[in-house]
Amino acid sequence: MATTPPQPLTPPRPHVVIVGGGFGGLAVARALRGAPVDVTLVDRRNHHLFQPLLYQVATGGLSPANIAVPLRRILRKHENVRVLLAEVRDVDLEAREVVLDHRRLGYDHLVVAAGATNQWFGNDDWEQHAPGLKSVADATAIRARILRAFEHAELLGARGAPQGVALRRWLTFVIIGAGPTGVEMAGAIAELARDTLRQDFRSIDTTQTRIVLVEGASQVLPVYPSGLAAKAQRELERQGVTVRTSTLVTAVDAEGITVRTATAPGEPEAVEERIDARTVIWAAGVRAVPLAARVAAAAGVEVDRGGRVPVGTDLTLPGHPEVSVIGDMAAAPGTDGRPLPGLAPVAMQGGEYAAAAILARLSGRQAAPFRFKDQGSMATVGRGFAVFQRGRIRVTGFLGWLGWLFIHLLQLVEMENRLLVVTQWAWSYLTRNRSARLIVDEADGREEREG
Amino acid sequence: MATTPPQPLTPPRPHVVIVGGGFGGLAVARALRGAPVDVTLVDRRNHHLFQPLLYQVATGGLSPANIAVPLRRILRKHENVRVLLAEVRDVDLEAREVVLDHRRLGYDHLVVAAGATNQWFGNDDWEQHAPGLKSVADATAIRARILRAFEHAELLGARGAPQGVALRRWLTFVIIGAGPTGVEMAGAIAELARDTLRQDFRSIDTTQTRIVLVEGASQVLPVYPSGLAAKAQRELERQGVTVRTSTLVTAVDAEGITVRTATAPGEPEAVEERIDARTVIWAAGVRAVPLAARVAAAAGVEVDRGGRVPVGTDLTLPGHPEVSVIGDMAAAPGTDGRPLPGLAPVAMQGGEYAAAAILARLSGRQAAPFRFKDQGSMATVGRGFAVFQRGRIRVTGFLGWLGWLFIHLLQLVEMENRLLVVTQWAWSYLTRNRSARLIVDEADGREEREG
Repeated sequence: MATTPPQPLTPPRPHVVIVGGGFGGLAVARALRGAPVDVTLVDRRNHHLFQPLLYQVATGGLSPANIAVPLRRILRKHENVRVLLAEVRDVDLEAREVVLDHRRLGYDHLVVAAGATNQWFGNDDWEQHAPGLKSVADATAIRARILRAFEHAELLGARGAPQGVALRRWLTFVIIGAGPTGVEMAGAIAELARDTLRQDFRSIDTTQTRIVLVEGASQVLPVYPSGLAAKAQRELERQGVTVRTSTLVTAVDAEGITVRTATAPGEPEAVEERIDARTVIWAAGVRAVPLAARVAAAAGVEVDRGGRVPVGTDLTLPGHPEVSVIGDMAAAPGTDGRPLPGLAPVAMQGGEYAAAAILARLSGRQAAPFRFKDQGSMATVGRGFAVFQRGRIRVTGFLGWLGWLFIHLLQLVEMENRLLVVTQWAWSYLTRNRSARLIVDEADGREEREG
Repeated sequence: MATTPPQPLTPPRPHVVIVGGGFGGLAVARALRGAPVDVTLVDRRNHHLFQPLLYQVATGGLSPANIAVPLRRILRKHENVRVLLAEVRDVDLEAREVVLDHRRLGYDHLVVAAGATNQWFGNDDWEQHAPGLKSVADATAIRARILRAFEHAELLGARGAPQGVALRRWLTFVIIGAGPTGVEMAGAIAELARDTLRQDFRSIDTTQTRIVLVEGASQVLPVYPSGLAAKAQRELERQGVTVRTSTLVTAVDAEGITVRTATAPGEPEAVEERIDARTVIWAAGVRAVPLAARVAAAAGVEVDRGGRVPVGTDLTLPGHPEVSVIGDMAAAPGTDGRPLPGLAPVAMQGGEYAAAAILARLSGRQAAPFRFKDQGSMATVGRGFAVFQRGRIRVTGFLGWLGWLFIHLLQLVEMENRLLVVTQWAWSYLTRNRSARLIVDEADGREEREG
């Protein structure tokens, strides 16, 4: 009989798989640093994206690398964390495996944090005319669209063409949805048109650009108190943005959108109205990624209207204490009974909680229920103006903007990025320039050789 | 009889059309600032690209906006200069018109400066496996390829697969062509693998990356003196680059390249050899853009082997003193009778000369022949090492690198970019980080919703 083979020096450690390197997933990985577990973070992108500043990329104020940091870089000193660049296709709850393209990955505990994507509310054909803003590729594509619209207008103007409807269409920008992203986009496009590009063209007057912000609710920033929203709207209007609240979009095509006024039940239906615009940007809604539906189906539960997975107060999947779902993919119960909103702080706190709950469970304890601590919310409305709200504290204007700037810089995950972003911003603020105004098309390389 | 209509206050001014906003075209536009001419600069991109630093974008050291500046921004205070974003399809020398996609543009004087593009010497199928580096889109595509190769290797390693040929193929990078771009790319990839990414992976050792620089000539940097070239090669080897001179590429496919040793006439032909590599980058040759052939044909002259238009000592097209051709598109006679090389200084000096010649011709004078003033040439070989040559002056090593850095920063056209590039570089140099390590794919946005 052979001798017993030597035992490995350490027993195999529990394997935690995290799906998604956004605010939620990254918070889990960071909180598990040095813990007695092996962690694998899977993302189909190689970078963490600081989404709150994505609108700055879409309007030429920042470069993608200013707000997107390689996940490997962030986690390089987390020796128990491995990063895999792969797309998660499904989850096998029975086998406790995550299904990737050509392989499966076993887990002892799974955290699903793959986030949300744009939704066009069943009108998927709107996407081509009204792209949304979720990824770096989205942002550079929207940047190219906006800049190209001014170029088209200049070409028309230089031709001495009758400066009528066609020109006006190129110089009209519609943003659908007046949540924080829509408001920020509208303000940034106004700044671009009225300041940055003012001296750049010869045949058109970019200060005559029309920016229309369309919102179905009765106020901009619908989740904010109405007083703050009114101030934000006044500031937008001061910057030259036309704000259309209580306005529903009924059609989107290459030449503009069709809207009608929202009416109360019983009121006569309003007539439809056309807004001519060559550039339309979608900021009206997101939905959990399709993986959410797969996870829910595997557990035998239904996703909610936003496609989110219902979870318990411990953020785990019903019947599966070994699977946490956090961030924009999860419908987690808030203290008022309504699900928590899809915001970065919810994802981050959820991630920290999930990591602590996993460690508690490994040592046989039970974590106390998750409670979200609201630290307030803020939105910026163009150059030097922001609104902030936390409980009864409300700040608007330049002071709000300074606070917004400070908090966002603090949050930027890497020191280097903070430094570069400060340099770039300080310069933009002083010169009103936006230096990352590049049109880079996919077909770019090919055209060159074709002639 | 009606009265005579009032005369316009100023007679119409001569119209100068410039095709291309590279080093040449931009030099013309700048030199014509305030001159009694109306200038239209046409480019199919909205930015001037500082090509000497494009390899830094391809290896994640700089963001595209650090080295690409909107043409409108550069020329915004040149009130007699108009910029049009359009592709020039042809030139009608008879009608004195430039042919754009949907219109024509008349000129009194034309400057053609549309540059060069990559050429694969008749093997256009090589392009998909060995992309070249000429545009921002090229650079971000190559960046994604390089970074994705390491990700593939990590996935293989994490699977515990036999770490044999497949893994080695992902960790081998071949650069074809050891001119300045090839040498710079090889050095930058070596730095990326040996420094930047060293701590980022768990299953692979990136310091074991193999970088092969293949050159048909008998030395790297073929146009440099052999002593400098030998020093550059030693430095490359010290950085871990395998240099293969006198080596001809006979095939390129998805799994690697086939080479044979260059042999002198009469020598027996060498056997072919395979270099397995998933990532191959083309830095072996450029050719004038197709517009050059159209311009030459219109004038009844033949392009040279590099597709360039032969021009006289005044840089104009034979028989067409109203058409200048400058930069990489032109075969301009040098003092030794050979055509001037395709270098940025040649294009810039040619542009300044063309502008002066146009103004001389307008006032009935004849410009003296163009003489290129060689200010020396330099190439960097990775972190802290460059070679510089001007006449009998030769500098290598760290001092050369400081000179290289200084000259390139001086040349960066916009103050803001200079500041940002300095910040980014200083940081990269201190931390050995390269922060712009983003993989952003064209299909990126779409995948998201598909699953």
